[in-house]
Amino acid sequence: MAEVFSPASQLRAMMRFEWALTRALERHGLAELGSSAALEALLEAGFVDIGALAGDARQSGNIAIPFVRQLTAAVAARSEAAARTIHLGATSQDVLDSALVLQLREALELLADGMERLDQALVRQVKQHADTLLCGRTWLQAAPPTTLGLKLAGTLAPVRRHRARLQAVAGRVLVLQFGGAVGTRAALGDAAEGVAAALAQILELKQPSLPWHTQRDNLAEVVAVLALLTGTLAKFATDVALLMQSEVGELSAGHAEGRGGSSTMPHKHNPVACAAVIAVHTTMPALASTMLAAMPQEHERGLGLWQAEWATVPEALRRTAAALEYAVEIAEGLEVNLARMQVNLDATLGLPMAEAVSVALAPKLGRARAHALLREAAERAYQAQVRLSEVLKQQPEVTAHLSPTEIDRLLDPRRYLGSARQFIEQALGESSAGD
Amino acid sequence: MAEVFSPASQLRAMMRFEWALTRALERHGLAELGSSAALEALLEAGFVDIGALAGDARQSGNIAIPFVRQLTAAVAARSEAAARTIHLGATSQDVLDSALVLQLREALELLADGMERLDQALVRQVKQHADTLLCGRTWLQAAPPTTLGLKLAGTLAPVRRHRARLQAVAGRVLVLQFGGAVGTRAALGDAAEGVAAALAQILELKQPSLPWHTQRDNLAEVVAVLALLTGTLAKFATDVALLMQSEVGELSAGHAEGRGGSSTMPHKHNPVACAAVIAVHTTMPALASTMLAAMPQEHERGLGLWQAEWATVPEALRRTAAALEYAVEIAEGLEVNLARMQVNLDATLGLPMAEAVSVALAPKLGRARAHALLREAAERAYQAQVRLSEVLKQQPEVTAHLSPTEIDRLLDPRRYLGSARQFIEQALGESSAGD
Amino acid sequence: MAEVFSPASQLRAMMRFEWALTRALERHGLAELGSSAALEALLEAGFVDIGALAGDARQSGNIAIPFVRQLTAAVAARSEAAARTIHLGATSQDVLDSALVLQLREALELLADGMERLDQALVRQVKQHADTLLCGRTWLQAAPPTTLGLKLAGTLAPVRRHRARLQAVAGRVLVLQFGGAVGTRAALGDAAEGVAAALAQILELKQPSLPWHTQRDNLAEVVAVLALLTGTLAKFATDVALLMQSEVGELSAGHAEGRGGSSTMPHKHNPVACAAVIAVHTTMPALASTMLAAMPQEHERGLGLWQAEWATVPEALRRTAAALEYAVEIAEGLEVNLARMQVNLDATLGLPMAEAVSVALAPKLGRARAHALLREAAERAYQAQVRLSEVLKQQPEVTAHLSPTEIDRLLDPRRYLGSARQFIEQALGESSAGD
Amino acid sequence: MAEVFSPASQLRAMMRFEWALTRALERHGLAELGSSAALEALLEAGFVDIGALAGDARQSGNIAIPFVRQLTAAVAARSEAAARTIHLGATSQDVLDSALVLQLREALELLADGMERLDQALVRQVKQHADTLLCGRTWLQAAPPTTLGLKLAGTLAPVRRHRARLQAVAGRVLVLQFGGAVGTRAALGDAAEGVAAALAQILELKQPSLPWHTQRDNLAEVVAVLALLTGTLAKFATDVALLMQSEVGELSAGHAEGRGGSSTMPHKHNPVACAAVIAVHTTMPALASTMLAAMPQEHERGLGLWQAEWATVPEALRRTAAALEYAVEIAEGLEVNLARMQVNLDATLGLPMAEAVSVALAPKLGRARAHALLREAAERAYQAQVRLSEVLKQQPEVTAHLSPTEIDRLLDPRRYLGSARQFIEQALGESSAGD
Repeated sequence: MAEVFSPASQLRAMMRFEWALTRALERHGLAELGSSAALEALLEAGFVDIGALAGDARQSGNIAIPFVRQLTAAVAARSEAAARTIHLGATSQDVLDSALVLQLREALELLADGMERLDQALVRQVKQHADTLLCGRTWLQAAPPTTLGLKLAGTLAPVRRHRARLQAVAGRVLVLQFGGAVGTRAALGDAAEGVAAALAQILELKQPSLPWHTQRDNLAEVVAVLALLTGTLAKFATDVALLMQSEVGELSAGHAEGRGGSSTMPHKHNPVACAAVIAVHTTMPALASTMLAAMPQEHERGLGLWQAEWATVPEALRRTAAALEYAVEIAEGLEVNLARMQVNLDATLGLPMAEAVSVALAPKLGRARAHALLREAAERAYQAQVRLSEVLKQQPEVTAHLSPTEIDRLLDPRRYLGSARQFIEQALGESSAGD
Repeated sequence: MAEVFSPASQLRAMMRFEWALTRALERHGLAELGSSAALEALLEAGFVDIGALAGDARQSGNIAIPFVRQLTAAVAARSEAAARTIHLGATSQDVLDSALVLQLREALELLADGMERLDQALVRQVKQHADTLLCGRTWLQAAPPTTLGLKLAGTLAPVRRHRARLQAVAGRVLVLQFGGAVGTRAALGDAAEGVAAALAQILELKQPSLPWHTQRDNLAEVVAVLALLTGTLAKFATDVALLMQSEVGELSAGHAEGRGGSSTMPHKHNPVACAAVIAVHTTMPALASTMLAAMPQEHERGLGLWQAEWATVPEALRRTAAALEYAVEIAEGLEVNLARMQVNLDATLGLPMAEAVSVALAPKLGRARAHALLREAAERAYQAQVRLSEVLKQQPEVTAHLSPTEIDRLLDPRRYLGSARQFIEQALGESSAGD
Repeated sequence: MAEVFSPASQLRAMMRFEWALTRALERHGLAELGSSAALEALLEAGFVDIGALAGDARQSGNIAIPFVRQLTAAVAARSEAAARTIHLGATSQDVLDSALVLQLREALELLADGMERLDQALVRQVKQHADTLLCGRTWLQAAPPTTLGLKLAGTLAPVRRHRARLQAVAGRVLVLQFGGAVGTRAALGDAAEGVAAALAQILELKQPSLPWHTQRDNLAEVVAVLALLTGTLAKFATDVALLMQSEVGELSAGHAEGRGGSSTMPHKHNPVACAAVIAVHTTMPALASTMLAAMPQEHERGLGLWQAEWATVPEALRRTAAALEYAVEIAEGLEVNLARMQVNLDATLGLPMAEAVSVALAPKLGRARAHALLREAAERAYQAQVRLSEVLKQQPEVTAHLSPTEIDRLLDPRRYLGSARQFIEQALGESSAGD
Repeated sequence: MAEVFSPASQLRAMMRFEWALTRALERHGLAELGSSAALEALLEAGFVDIGALAGDARQSGNIAIPFVRQLTAAVAARSEAAARTIHLGATSQDVLDSALVLQLREALELLADGMERLDQALVRQVKQHADTLLCGRTWLQAAPPTTLGLKLAGTLAPVRRHRARLQAVAGRVLVLQFGGAVGTRAALGDAAEGVAAALAQILELKQPSLPWHTQRDNLAEVVAVLALLTGTLAKFATDVALLMQSEVGELSAGHAEGRGGSSTMPHKHNPVACAAVIAVHTTMPALASTMLAAMPQEHERGLGLWQAEWATVPEALRRTAAALEYAVEIAEGLEVNLARMQVNLDATLGLPMAEAVSVALAPKLGRARAHALLREAAERAYQAQVRLSEVLKQQPEVTAHLSPTEIDRLLDPRRYLGSARQFIEQALGESSAGD
């Protein structure tokens, strides 16, 4: 992804736009035959003097103006005629926006690949751990049990929704920008429509219903969807990091040799990948916010807000791609410590299972009384550090309704997983179009 | 919208969930027959002691817990049996999230109505002003001409994309929340599936593939889409306010008597509605950002991040609805000052039309030379404050290629609108499914 | 704090401004004698028809205009003369901004009280737990030991910096707003200076060097400082919640009866106060961001950005005050489980103490070799689940340099607290002016 | 500024820390004599293999760990003894944070220089234009007159407050980070205090009261203050850009040859510098927000939030420095078009002066009646497009109290500048310590 948004890639994408424009002009008799051939040799954009470009951009307000100037000079050295019609009918923003769209197309394909890998890794782990029992946790406190499969299926579902979102947003954003100075394409007169159609066809981009120089919803949506995606990844990474805590120890993120070592503490295996995902997401709401704040661009082309997008969109894609790669690593390399899961469940003294008994007693005692009764029993068990079952078996209000065997059955976490398996199947069975 | 998200409405939606749950339990033999009837009388939630609710919520961490307690007491006064199974199988977050979804359903319908009105108002204005000529503006500087119709069509296109986005997000977010303590529905055992299906059917909500207690992408997406929408509205309001400036005077936002008066300046008609739309959007990126930041909720139910959503979602909808209403007012009441548009065009001395001549000369002189030539001519016209045509007609390099009549034709803004009409038709012809 | 920013309080503060202005005008002969007495009876602002106010505000763009109209009518009923000079020389923003400043003064005093309580509670706990040993944690992994006192001193230091920040910002923001329509006070002619001075003196506010209708740095700074403060509180609450995890169990946030109970899980004591603090801070960066985004207000008075501040400033103060109150509760009621701290330390097998041995060996073996050696020993101890000391005592490269007694001494966490005590003293000894 | 935060500069700052640490260890007998000399030759950090560094950082979670490894190897080649004590007692975050502080010190000095230049440029312009009359503008509508001097003094005041803020924050943030693994400096035992003091003295940094690995308020404050500063700059740039609009034409941002040219429109002089400042500020609230969101770092050293700071702080400084440089250019090169200011004032027909007459009539007719009367007169003048004075001189309710000469005097904008001069003097007279 760093490559897709490197300065060189941007220049190549700009060059590709200018070349395609010349070809389109050629086809409509607005550029001399052979002009596009003169540009074709420059598609790698090696002619650009990057230092001069940056300096001139400071004067002109963007890099497109000096880029076109340098390009014109480079072409003129080969063909005066070809140089004459470079950039004809386009404005700076046309080339910069269209180049961005070309880069975005590549970027979204890379992301789609990463999402596919994440999906597969999660599917594999969900299936493998469909029955792996562990303590549920709410408010960071022990709660009734769940399965690791269900936990991971919880991530799989939004991952698939994000795939659907990325497809929808790609359908909107991957469109040509070609409007000329004020979005009318006036400079090309009657030939405008034909040139635009040819340009779109050469670049393999759809045409929008009208130019979008100051209508930036699609671009802002890209970054918002990326932030939604990293939000899901951060939730996943947070859970893994919490389960990797020394005191919990239920998971570790499978690490390559050396990953997570400390400069001072020889014993450490730090959850480096989890930290990286969390770090990325911590910065993403702000990038989405910047894109949203930059939307009200004035009139036909705005003043300053467009410029605020320039660093933001590539940064969002670079960071999302990095987070996605780390998340795939985590999902693929997850190491599960079944013994610690059991130890941690046992350490709860059965208290989180109180609900099961409470529900069983509710029809007899009323939900409120049953809840209060279990709350007292749980407190007593906790204070005495004995298992809840012991307390309950000595509590007449309970034993009046439940035999010791029934109490044990009710307190068996394996029997208290409700619809977990069904949810997993539903999550797995979903098409990638989301639910 | 204020009504939809009032405290009373929230309590009614919560009450509706609890009633529907009891009905669903009844159908599956888990609540005594007649229980739901006992709750039906309380659907208006008039029994709630709001002061006590707020106080207790401070202890319990949310209002659902004291709400269920008060409800249980109120029902118990009518039917001990019915009181026993209230809230059975549900967790606090089930009732709060599902109530929010019920409120969201109403809210999204209200927004859809507003969007329809905005769409219609824009369509009417676009058609009426398809040929209304005015100065284009880029960087807040005069640029080649455009039409008011095209300008407004520019807003119509994203408005329709937002309608498509709102439909897509409604399809994802309007789903039941019903997972119990840790999202397994364990408390209901084998009956869970049937109860959940009945509950969803009674509330007319779809079922998600699995509970979403800590997977908040759909909710965060709602707020992101709202911020995208207000971004478009703010761009529209900004343009209108800029065109309403005393020095521009091309538009005014049709005002009811008294709108926009000043406490000190008797002559003023302030763009109050524009300011209101801009004010809303200034706060929306932050609300979207908060929802994104709140996504990594821990484990089965989180610690603090869910709570951060509570004020954010209603606030986003309230503000968006207010901005939308103001935007509809602006779009419906737009007053156009054709004379000022002509005056402002004339005041540019024809300079923004330089491009037309530059393009006409490019095939003869090369784009670079033509551009430089026109730039000099424009500077000279500007310095002397004479029309560009006068300068050009005395410039041999120009007159060698263009006759005075040709120069006048090239400088006629009415002839320099390019594809404006076609873009308008494309924007109007779009289905509401977006482009 | 809810009271300070209630609608009624705002109206009273506005009323106070208008009354003080009339008094100031009286003193300079610009209002008839007795005018301010006519307003004095209305200081409670009971005359305001709030419904009409809201409706009219929609027309006029703010509540000050209809407020002045209602006030004028109410005064006219008592004294035609007094009614004539109401609001003379002021603009809507003068009354709204000055009223906000009056509310802010109260709000900052409330916050200062809360900060004082938090400071005291932290000081008490820091002193009490200066030698309370617990596992240090980095990357959520066990690390060398620290003390609870040092951990809490870590929070005390920024708390004191925030107190200094709040004082500095109060010195800047608690200033009169009184500039008239465009910030020149032109309407009052030569009397302007005297009236302004009198007004400031009556309201006990400083005068700024010039009006600040569109220079909002001080207000934005208030919200930024509040977000810095809640950031510190959230760090504190996060640490407490992590130490309260079932698997850690080293702390609990002392709870009133019923705090943190669950609607479904009878055994739970949820960290409600911690969640509340975290929830507040999750929303605060966005509020600060909104204030910053709203800064570039146009010309003499802006269009929309000022309005974006209206809900934001009160919301920031309300939320900060709530978070502060919860934080004080947590700090005051912290319950420490010394036994669990020891258990958790023991469970680390001494691995986090590896650094101590590594450092001791470094002068002999070089830091790199010592680090590698200990890393291997730690891995071996971890794999075999034996204490690090056992492994080390059998490792010739270690025993060549260290006797078993020396190894034990090095691995004693009590002897590995470095400058903890000194840091605590420094943190305690700081004046409230920050370090 | 780009130089200060280049990768090479960061490595040099890190190197400087490691060298200073070795020197400090030497002084206390913990490193062999001559060790620091071995490091001194490497202060330019030329030995670093940057490619390997980035790759290894992906494994270890930060660049400090591989940096120390490469440094150790480079030193070992010269002196085994010196290599042994490299980084002794420090943790990765110590070197990274301290290096950042060293970079920040340079950065804040650069900013202080820029602020001084901006201050001087504004002072010069304020003085020169203290009596330059122009239309005041509120809600983007013509309002009573002001002076360009007062307008610019409005920016000078917060610029001076920002200078005070930057000084205060520098006093807090420019402190050593040196805490070791968990902030206790345990690895150095009794020598810790002395080594730390020496290290601070060598680096010419103050010592904090205790390490701040997870207390990030000072760093977050830096970015918040930068965003406050760019907010002021963006307000300034926005006003200039609005006054540069083709239809207003009162200012232009003095441009070097070629600045602001358009690739398509030969006549354009775009406000490139204004756009750049606005672009920067559009991104700054989000950077401040990220730093605030990253504050709740866990325990002794956190998981992911620290990493979120890494790109954010340098980016904020780079962008602020760029905006500041552009703002200085604008302030220094401001070109004022006095004729257009007069034309624009005249074009208002005297309507914005209605207030002056309204105020004069208020004592006779009451403020409400006077206001209504002028509102009617203003409407009539506006409809008929005649000067307000004409309408007023034919209005008996006015002429009963005011002679034509009095009306003309009241409507003279030069006589309606109130305290403008006094405000300017106050703004200029302020010390740089703010008001």
